[in-house]
Amino acid sequence: MEHTVKAFDHDIGQLRGLIAQMGGLAEQAIARAMETLRRQDLEGAAEIVAGDKAIDALQIQVEALAVRIIALRAPMADDLREVVAALKIAGVVERIGDYAKNIAKRVPSIEWHSEVEPLSVLPAMATLAVNMVRDALDAFAARDAEGATRVAASDRALDDFYNSLFRILVTHMMENPKTIGQMAHVLFIAKNLERVGDHAVNVAEMVHFAATGAHMAERDRGHSPVQ
Amino acid sequence: MEHTVKAFDHDIGQLRGLIAQMGGLAEQAIARAMETLRRQDLEGAAEIVAGDKAIDALQIQVEALAVRIIALRAPMADDLREVVAALKIAGVVERIGDYAKNIAKRVPSIEWHSEVEPLSVLPAMATLAVNMVRDALDAFAARDAEGATRVAASDRALDDFYNSLFRILVTHMMENPKTIGQMAHVLFIAKNLERVGDHAVNVAEMVHFAATGAHMAERDRGHSPVQ
Repeated sequence: MEHTVKAFDHDIGQLRGLIAQMGGLAEQAIARAMETLRRQDLEGAAEIVAGDKAIDALQIQVEALAVRIIALRAPMADDLREVVAALKIAGVVERIGDYAKNIAKRVPSIEWHSEVEPLSVLPAMATLAVNMVRDALDAFAARDAEGATRVAASDRALDDFYNSLFRILVTHMMENPKTIGQMAHVLFIAKNLERVGDHAVNVAEMVHFAATGAHMAERDRGHSPVQ
Repeated sequence: MEHTVKAFDHDIGQLRGLIAQMGGLAEQAIARAMETLRRQDLEGAAEIVAGDKAIDALQIQVEALAVRIIALRAPMADDLREVVAALKIAGVVERIGDYAKNIAKRVPSIEWHSEVEPLSVLPAMATLAVNMVRDALDAFAARDAEGATRVAASDRALDDFYNSLFRILVTHMMENPKTIGQMAHVLFIAKNLERVGDHAVNVAEMVHFAATGAHMAERDRGHSPVQ
């Protein structure tokens, strides 16, 4: 029995390690994508696009390991809940990586000018989104249900950011019709960042569920803006 | 042994049935969301938003059943590949449902006028996306690798549609600055439909892999437009 417990703990530790690695890469990819946008660094942006494959490969490893754990150890109750949560969290982190890739792909289509209002707001929004991802992954690593609840709460600030940026963008487009094509890309980047926040909340919800066996209260979970 | 095989076949049949049900709902939700947009049917749109919960609930059932199958039957090789594919396909179908919900949420923000060029193009694009979803699910039901390859091939047409709509939208916004806010919503709907196609391709890839054990050739898989 002792032996079985240790084997499971070892497996789950490995699973969590892979996810921490994925999470670190995804978080970094978002931050770096914004950096390449600011620096007009097309090569760096291309590297981020190519680097997404590493995140995808880790997800495949997580899946294979999770399936092996379920099949070999037949974990029950809390243990099974933890393996399934890990599997799902890996899926969400992979999507966060996709958003980073998507932002990086748009770098060549946007000319950076810090004084253009929609662009000036974007870095702070990105920082907020990246922090949410980091906090969600920290909550996962520490099995911290309260930390998870705080991540969900901060999604409102990100949504407010997005809503105000949406209005700023529409106004900017009206006043500068020539920039509409570019600003459409900025709009998609803003939406991607808003979605990154939603995914951080998804991770947080799963951490909360795996840690407590209960879903987060509806009021803590936030709601996406319609825009 | 006979007994075990039958039990597995029964389980996997049930799993596939749940996914077919999810797929039907998701496909319908996209088609109906477009219909409510055309008819300016706000109530219908709200129903689609609420109805997404049914798709989410089915996904939870699929997950629980897949985990139970893996733990109880410890399937190997092809069988395990099929269960994992089903689990992943359910995740993708859930996302397709989310896109339908997202389209439906935008209905109140868009005034429908069939003669407005970006709007006039949208229904045909939606039909193409819905057909791809249907074909991908048919390929899944029939374990049809060739059918799956055809779905992936038709993604190019959807991407071309999206690219041309992107240009139409930018031009329309330039010429009608007052509609920019509305047209931003139309742009997001177009992007959602393009993403629905990508997800149909994802399903098709998994069907191909589950049926043949080999990944689809890179050239068949299509690539997302940058816009």
